[in-house]
Amino acid sequence: MNDEHFMRLALELARKGEGKVNPNPMVGAVIVKDGRIIGVGWHEYYGGKHAEVNAIENAKLRGHSVRGATMYVTLEPCVHWGKQPPCADRIIAEGIKRVVISLEDLNPLVAGKGIEKLRKAGIEVEVGILEEEARKLNEIFIKYITTGIPFVSIKLALTLDGYIATETFESKWITGEEARRKVQELRRKHMAIMVGANTVLKDNPSLNCRLLGCPEKIKVILDRSARIAREVRRGRKFKLFEDGRVIFFTERPEEFEGIAEAYNITEPKAILEFLGSMGIDSVLIEGGKIACQFLPFADRLYLFYGSKILGRGIKPFECLNVKSLREAFKVRVESVEVLGGDVLVVGAGDVHGNR
Amino acid sequence: MNDEHFMRLALELARKGEGKVNPNPMVGAVIVKDGRIIGVGWHEYYGGKHAEVNAIENAKLRGHSVRGATMYVTLEPCVHWGKQPPCADRIIAEGIKRVVISLEDLNPLVAGKGIEKLRKAGIEVEVGILEEEARKLNEIFIKYITTGIPFVSIKLALTLDGYIATETFESKWITGEEARRKVQELRRKHMAIMVGANTVLKDNPSLNCRLLGCPEKIKVILDRSARIAREVRRGRKFKLFEDGRVIFFTERPEEFEGIAEAYNITEPKAILEFLGSMGIDSVLIEGGKIACQFLPFADRLYLFYGSKILGRGIKPFECLNVKSLREAFKVRVESVEVLGGDVLVVGAGDVHGNR
Repeated sequence: MNDEHFMRLALELARKGEGKVNPNPMVGAVIVKDGRIIGVGWHEYYGGKHAEVNAIENAKLRGHSVRGATMYVTLEPCVHWGKQPPCADRIIAEGIKRVVISLEDLNPLVAGKGIEKLRKAGIEVEVGILEEEARKLNEIFIKYITTGIPFVSIKLALTLDGYIATETFESKWITGEEARRKVQELRRKHMAIMVGANTVLKDNPSLNCRLLGCPEKIKVILDRSARIAREVRRGRKFKLFEDGRVIFFTERPEEFEGIAEAYNITEPKAILEFLGSMGIDSVLIEGGKIACQFLPFADRLYLFYGSKILGRGIKPFECLNVKSLREAFKVRVESVEVLGGDVLVVGAGDVHGNR
Repeated sequence: MNDEHFMRLALELARKGEGKVNPNPMVGAVIVKDGRIIGVGWHEYYGGKHAEVNAIENAKLRGHSVRGATMYVTLEPCVHWGKQPPCADRIIAEGIKRVVISLEDLNPLVAGKGIEKLRKAGIEVEVGILEEEARKLNEIFIKYITTGIPFVSIKLALTLDGYIATETFESKWITGEEARRKVQELRRKHMAIMVGANTVLKDNPSLNCRLLGCPEKIKVILDRSARIAREVRRGRKFKLFEDGRVIFFTERPEEFEGIAEAYNITEPKAILEFLGSMGIDSVLIEGGKIACQFLPFADRLYLFYGSKILGRGIKPFECLNVKSLREAFKVRVESVEVLGGDVLVVGAGDVHGNR
């Protein structure tokens, strides 16, 4: 039983907070004494107790003293008062002897101060165990805390020859059940889901996350000319208003009065900055033409290829003005998998040369 | 050590003949006596000795008697005189006691007759060990021997959004080194490589297989209006004439007199039937617009996706006249892999509903 073993467990626990803790990071903690696990905890939901405190309380509930124990925690313990008291103080007060940390906090309010405080209190501190895994786990948090801009994912369903719909805009369904279930997992991971007005007017989607225990999603709609507002006034019902917060970006915010939040911002970069300023750490952009506008800002691409060839149809990235292969938008392919006969290619868009 | 173990080795040996034995099947054989391998062999090249005979001779060379031994062979031994005497007779004459066969021969000249002959001679025969693997290994042979039509593979290099070139026909290179090396392996596997005249006129490709020990390929060029013939007469040199047989399909075969074989056939189905009648068991169709014409006849698709997004460009399958998703050409995805940052999707085109 070594440090990596316990840290891997802490990382697994952390992941239980996926989609529930945003814009906080996912954090897991494991307390070990005499080679045995005496307490586990994780950050369960936004505003809830931190992983370290949950692990300490779990140990106590099970009748153990944490004095002299080792704590494995996936992120540097905090030293500032947020929604919860600082974890570093609590760790010191409880008499924990050794703290193993995966990733140093990148939040400028913490950044190494937790480690310093623990060390000054005489606690043995190790940093960097399974750091790459911890970084990957909290890629949304890291991007957001260091830039103030949400983590941007683009999800598209394409035919094998690259169409998102037939020429008559038929797109149900390019991919099968399994791929669509995977999209639900992507929705869970992101705080907000963004689509264009066309998608809303045509498909009337709920844009919610139907997985068990999945929190309500913030729905962001780009509706430059306020077409949806006019449809609502005419009495048309849209499913997306049934749950969760809805935010419109439009040239005519006044038309949305009494309907939903609306802001007069239409440039992709400004929209992302504004969402970031509202505390939204991640946006999943689904489908269609808006994906192209946001492509230069994409951190991740989820390209679902249905096992079909169409020949002709609607192309997703026509807005790019690429003249030569050298100018093409580059994707760093991270993984591929077969999902019930369809293919999912996951790639990173933040590649040198694109920005 | 069980039957499967030795048959797996026989299948591995068989694969050494890939690209060299066409239009014969790849066959491997292993001879086992008292639990020890005493001889191995495979069909090495077209016209060469069969795997069974090579294994018997290998055992003798190594000083063993095969009398009373077990032979593992991936395909039913033949009973007819072809370029070689019948293997079943040789097996009987050598006193082999037991024969384990993976796949019954589908060649109507053999079809169970080998098994029957062996059994009548008092040899214990088992059939069907690792049959699926053997079937997959010899899919080209099986398609060709049962239909007379070559096995048709289509290979394309596409961007992630489905373009085979920019709008100005730039296509070098959509994929990287590793993907292109894989194409060489595909060329090895097929007897013939087919392209359209455009590809020849624009890229002047050699269309050969540059892998060590790879035999010359038959090059099939679709040149309806004999443009290449006229270029040759004007003194232009084409690399594809440097090695291997070249066959043109054109409306003007007379223009190719003194240059290359040429036939007045232009319909895809008729071209494939004709190639089959010439003893060509497999065609790799590379690139471009001709892939679309042959799509309805494709047994296998190799779609190499370069990690780029272009937005606009040349689409490969525009010739399909698909109006709805229901009418789309269906692909059964067999595997996906990442090849040096690019993605290879391998699929079968012979899916119910396409033909």
